[in-house]
Amino acid sequence: PGPDLGAERAVRERDAQLTKPPGSLGRLEDIAVWLAAWQGKPKPEINRPTVCVFAGNHGVVAQGVSPYPQSVTRQMLENFAAGGAAINQICAAYDLGFKVFDLALDIPTGDITQEAALDEKSCVATMAFGMEAISGGIDLLGLGEMGIGNTTIAAAIYAGLYGGDPSRFVGRGTGLDDEGLKRKTAAVERALVIHAGHLADPLELLRRLGGREIAATAGAILAARLNRIPVVLDGYVITAAAAVLHALDPSALDHCVAGHVSAEGAHREVLERLGLKPVIDLGMRLGEGSGAALAMGVIKAAAACHTGMATFGQAGVSDREG
Amino acid sequence: PGPDLGAERAVRERDAQLTKPPGSLGRLEDIAVWLAAWQGKPKPEINRPTVCVFAGNHGVVAQGVSPYPQSVTRQMLENFAAGGAAINQICAAYDLGFKVFDLALDIPTGDITQEAALDEKSCVATMAFGMEAISGGIDLLGLGEMGIGNTTIAAAIYAGLYGGDPSRFVGRGTGLDDEGLKRKTAAVERALVIHAGHLADPLELLRRLGGREIAATAGAILAARLNRIPVVLDGYVITAAAAVLHALDPSALDHCVAGHVSAEGAHREVLERLGLKPVIDLGMRLGEGSGAALAMGVIKAAAACHTGMATFGQAGVSDREG
Repeated sequence: PGPDLGAERAVRERDAQLTKPPGSLGRLEDIAVWLAAWQGKPKPEINRPTVCVFAGNHGVVAQGVSPYPQSVTRQMLENFAAGGAAINQICAAYDLGFKVFDLALDIPTGDITQEAALDEKSCVATMAFGMEAISGGIDLLGLGEMGIGNTTIAAAIYAGLYGGDPSRFVGRGTGLDDEGLKRKTAAVERALVIHAGHLADPLELLRRLGGREIAATAGAILAARLNRIPVVLDGYVITAAAAVLHALDPSALDHCVAGHVSAEGAHREVLERLGLKPVIDLGMRLGEGSGAALAMGVIKAAAACHTGMATFGQAGVSDREG
Repeated sequence: PGPDLGAERAVRERDAQLTKPPGSLGRLEDIAVWLAAWQGKPKPEINRPTVCVFAGNHGVVAQGVSPYPQSVTRQMLENFAAGGAAINQICAAYDLGFKVFDLALDIPTGDITQEAALDEKSCVATMAFGMEAISGGIDLLGLGEMGIGNTTIAAAIYAGLYGGDPSRFVGRGTGLDDEGLKRKTAAVERALVIHAGHLADPLELLRRLGGREIAATAGAILAARLNRIPVVLDGYVITAAAAVLHALDPSALDHCVAGHVSAEGAHREVLERLGLKPVIDLGMRLGEGSGAALAMGVIKAAAACHTGMATFGQAGVSDREG
């Protein structure tokens, strides 16, 4: 479905009557319009904002592309469950729901430098899992991920989609040293050679170069559109899933905002390609949905301004002269 | 007083043990260090974050520098009291305290195109009022203002402090048309001619070109420093008060962050001159402390991450290899 133009118009009309100079809330005003358009409600509501984090493990970790061992993926899920991670604190600060999905952590994907990450059945099933995961009345969805090695996967996806020198999409991830960065770049380059000739179809590219959290995220973005749930994207890895959908259909992300621009890799360039303008720009590169959650705090305030403010008439405030 | 270097060190040491790659929270990490340094606490605390809004009226409004009548200043204070303004919604969204101070609204300042805004006694008394206003256990102070005509005042202050063509500091404020912009620019130019030769002392400049909310804000920034309260500045008008203090002493704002960069006038240039990097950049230009309050939401999340996250040891998460 497309944006609800009636809801959009209703928000613009109300906005013009609120006790503030026209345009003075800047992007907060655009966000209110966007929420209404994609929720399909003339008064946008955020009652169940929720961050969904998808977690997966990656065979490519065998290539020495991360300074952390693969076991950290599961350990961090336990940290999420115990409330000890950054995302827990941000969700608590803004009263956001938080859900984590373990996507077969004990079965890492295939090493993309040697084989496809997923077979066709797994890829489709994981997308379907992501579509189901966002049920339950969510009205603003933040998407995040956890997966040691997945900035390598993101880099491979961008390089596969956009071509050119793959190294420009390769960042230091969780903090690689120079040697590690060389290994990571080499891994991305090898993956592109191995899968060359099979990357023209974005979904086939996703299956070969992706990962379970990427496939589930793509499914969640699609399902959110069908269910009229506006989506807040997190950083470099989540945007890779979005980029696959955008390659299929340039309007596929119209119901999404970029929560933030990550310090990882070429995120700024990628967001420009996708036509997404980040809400937050604070040099973060943690993942876990942390950038999305921070932006959801801003989005909540934007919705609160639109729905809670008095009009000039209600407040007895004089509007502009002339 | 200066920053508490011991508290700063304690935050950096704890930060290095938290369950995240070093540096991955970007500016949120810097904010935690800044909070600790200026609160003088090894664990920064935000229990009573409060937005203080100072309101004043301006004689220069007689020059046709605003599309809104002067009566709107008081009407907006009534809107604040009734909970109908944007700042009310943002404070509610982030659980921030909110205080408004009416600074003799019935006695506008002198028209700066013809006389000094304030006499010496009023200027000093208003600064002292601002110093007192922030008492009551505030541990994070957001500063905001309300005053029809006060972007003209801010422009005059910047032009007086920084010289050059005054027009570059003159913006459209609440939404001036081209004719209004010409009147506003002319008013600033006339004020600079009238007061020429008396602007070398920043406090004398504040008295002649300023306003009550600017003087009170300057007092509040000073008192916050003495009371170890970190300060979040709002936009174009609040920064003018900060600029006066900075002209007196370039270290005077070390306990302050710029909450946002306003779309008004030359705010970006001014922040660069002051060495302040905005937390939020969303094209807002409302005043009322709205940009500061939005940033306080981010700062609350930054503090929550630092104090609430588990360490690698506590969470049983493996740290980096090698």
